[in-house]
Amino acid sequence: MKTLESTIEIAVRFSETDAMGVVWHGNYLKFFEDAREYFGAEHGMEYLDVYGQGFYTPIVKSDINHKASVYYGQKVSVKAILEYHPASKIVFKYIVTNLATGQIAATGSTTQVFLSVKENLLELMKPSFYAEWEEKQNWIENE
Amino acid sequence: MKTLESTIEIAVRFSETDAMGVVWHGNYLKFFEDAREYFGAEHGMEYLDVYGQGFYTPIVKSDINHKASVYYGQKVSVKAILEYHPASKIVFKYIVTNLATGQIAATGSTTQVFLSVKENLLELMKPSFYAEWEEKQNWIENE
Amino acid sequence: MKTLESTIEIAVRFSETDAMGVVWHGNYLKFFEDAREYFGAEHGMEYLDVYGQGFYTPIVKSDINHKASVYYGQKVSVKAILEYHPASKIVFKYIVTNLATGQIAATGSTTQVFLSVKENLLELMKPSFYAEWEEKQNWIENE
Amino acid sequence: MKTLESTIEIAVRFSETDAMGVVWHGNYLKFFEDAREYFGAEHGMEYLDVYGQGFYTPIVKSDINHKASVYYGQKVSVKAILEYHPASKIVFKYIVTNLATGQIAATGSTTQVFLSVKENLLELMKPSFYAEWEEKQNWIENE
Repeated sequence: MKTLESTIEIAVRFSETDAMGVVWHGNYLKFFEDAREYFGAEHGMEYLDVYGQGFYTPIVKSDINHKASVYYGQKVSVKAILEYHPASKIVFKYIVTNLATGQIAATGSTTQVFLSVKENLLELMKPSFYAEWEEKQNWIENE
Repeated sequence: MKTLESTIEIAVRFSETDAMGVVWHGNYLKFFEDAREYFGAEHGMEYLDVYGQGFYTPIVKSDINHKASVYYGQKVSVKAILEYHPASKIVFKYIVTNLATGQIAATGSTTQVFLSVKENLLELMKPSFYAEWEEKQNWIENE
Repeated sequence: MKTLESTIEIAVRFSETDAMGVVWHGNYLKFFEDAREYFGAEHGMEYLDVYGQGFYTPIVKSDINHKASVYYGQKVSVKAILEYHPASKIVFKYIVTNLATGQIAATGSTTQVFLSVKENLLELMKPSFYAEWEEKQNWIENE
Repeated sequence: MKTLESTIEIAVRFSETDAMGVVWHGNYLKFFEDAREYFGAEHGMEYLDVYGQGFYTPIVKSDINHKASVYYGQKVSVKAILEYHPASKIVFKYIVTNLATGQIAATGSTTQVFLSVKENLLELMKPSFYAEWEEKQNWIENE
């Protein structure tokens, strides 16, 4: 598996906590989004670049595994790991670490597809601008 | 002042509470939105009707006054009161009542303007479809 | 597999849409939460009942599969299906149907565990109040 | 009027936009919260410090004035300006600037009071730890 990664730090918002005093579970998808956007900025493939090429990349699948709570006042780091896949999809894995404890708070993944803005149709082949971008990256080779 | 009103009941979501155990203050704007939409459905002037006539009605001003907390598991009623104004704007007042205690939890208001979708320009005069709708309503006369 | 179910209708909030004009993918976890709470009210096992017995039931796992978009102005139904498991966990499956089109918009699942409020410890055995509640339900037998 | 200020930069989240393609109006209260927390970190008076002294500081009043839209992909700066008041309350003013255009996107304010955590009672006098903190600050004198 070839991968690329980026890590962002996020300070938890008070509005993101719930009555149990911890970050509400659904807000991790916002952290994943932040990490994805930061990845895009670091690696030169931002949402608006993709849109400018005529594509949406909606999320068709996501999952979260919660390992430990994050409390208000704590910071997390979110590592977004893009996996290289030959198929026409974008798969990210995520690792959320509670920086106050060093513990992994959650892991997760999202899968995105390419949809042409004009015809609102699924692209079964990778768009060429994206395949070209993939070729230029310094992928990490994992076993 | 002439007014029209509608009242909706809302069950507080767990995700809407914060680490103080109560509804996060900013979520009242979502309750106001719910009440506005319910008002639109009851009085025959929905967001999509307005959009179909070529207008957005963005909120340009809002305020909230918090009187008492709302806890998870409690329900609220939100009364939306449309005020008649000769100017080209839509002004709602809101009263949020905690149905578990009978107490007023919050009051507030929002002001919307008409923006043409095509030119993205402020409409200085009330659009005619809206003025016609206003004429057909059974306004309540307040002193 | 034995199951129990409940179905709630939800009107999509404008604030729940995103710049693609559809419900933001992460908001489906709020719809799941609404369905879970409605299930609890219908079947007599609400969050605050569980808390009153000395337990939190945090979500440790969730996933969403998106099938079709939901636009502002549309309503969805969310069916929450509780699965009977001998282990000390609560597993719900969800089916979100776009009521404007009749299409399934998304499916998903969540897994919750029992955590004692006092000791903040995972309960490896089902709490007895919960096992007793399970015994009294009219489970649907699925193959 | 004596004031103290802090300015934070925020990248707009995709999930914070709505179907009009701009930041949903209610999300500005999250930006205000971010700015308030950043202010607390810069000036040595954080939420958890206040809580550690036995006080909550719930928001009892807020208002937002929208001047211009913020689109996805744009960044904003939020200046939080603490006003010195002799009364037992915390008043912030906010200025949100769209960094992509240089325009002011919104202004607003929030008012917080002191509530003792133990008795859940309003503090009519400024808590002494807070008055002492105020005395040590280098306030800006405005006319």
